[in-house]
Amino acid sequence: MYGLIGKMNIAPGERDAVIAILLEGTQAMPGCRSYVVAKDPANADAIWITEVWDSAELHHASLALPGVQQAIARARPHITGFGERFETEPVGGY
Amino acid sequence: MYGLIGKMNIAPGERDAVIAILLEGTQAMPGCRSYVVAKDPANADAIWITEVWDSAELHHASLALPGVQQAIARARPHITGFGERFETEPVGGY
Repeated sequence: MYGLIGKMNIAPGERDAVIAILLEGTQAMPGCRSYVVAKDPANADAIWITEVWDSAELHHASLALPGVQQAIARARPHITGFGERFETEPVGGY
Repeated sequence: MYGLIGKMNIAPGERDAVIAILLEGTQAMPGCRSYVVAKDPANADAIWITEVWDSAELHHASLALPGVQQAIARARPHITGFGERFETEPVGGY
């Protein structure tokens, strides 16, 4: 399995809108076992995204999905940068 | 909801054993929506744990569950420290 933990910085006031875009655009991604979007309670302009994929290849392939491409296009103007980013190798859990 | 992202450092050679202990001890935790254990591909002696809970209170309560207490007791001798730790506020996903 392949995992990602990442922090995204959002323009002030746009966090809820970006969260909605991400949740809408990531519902049907082959090979994605988990995609959780969270607010950063310590930073009103940041979110955390944690992902579990069957493989890194399927994660990369997802970036070409029409729904994901649309979400990226809609969210991008509000993304001001990226914070921590960790790749992981999930081995179990639920 | 309440989320945790954390890195745990494990004594050399004990990572797989600790992962097994954690996965076994965290299967039935009231209020826990997700508990994923992952290897750190960049560090053979580290793991990442990502958690999604209905509330911080239920997370705290879980630490008193017999199965969790046993897992902590068994894993503790092999834990050498903790790395990054982030609290989050999950808002959606799967």
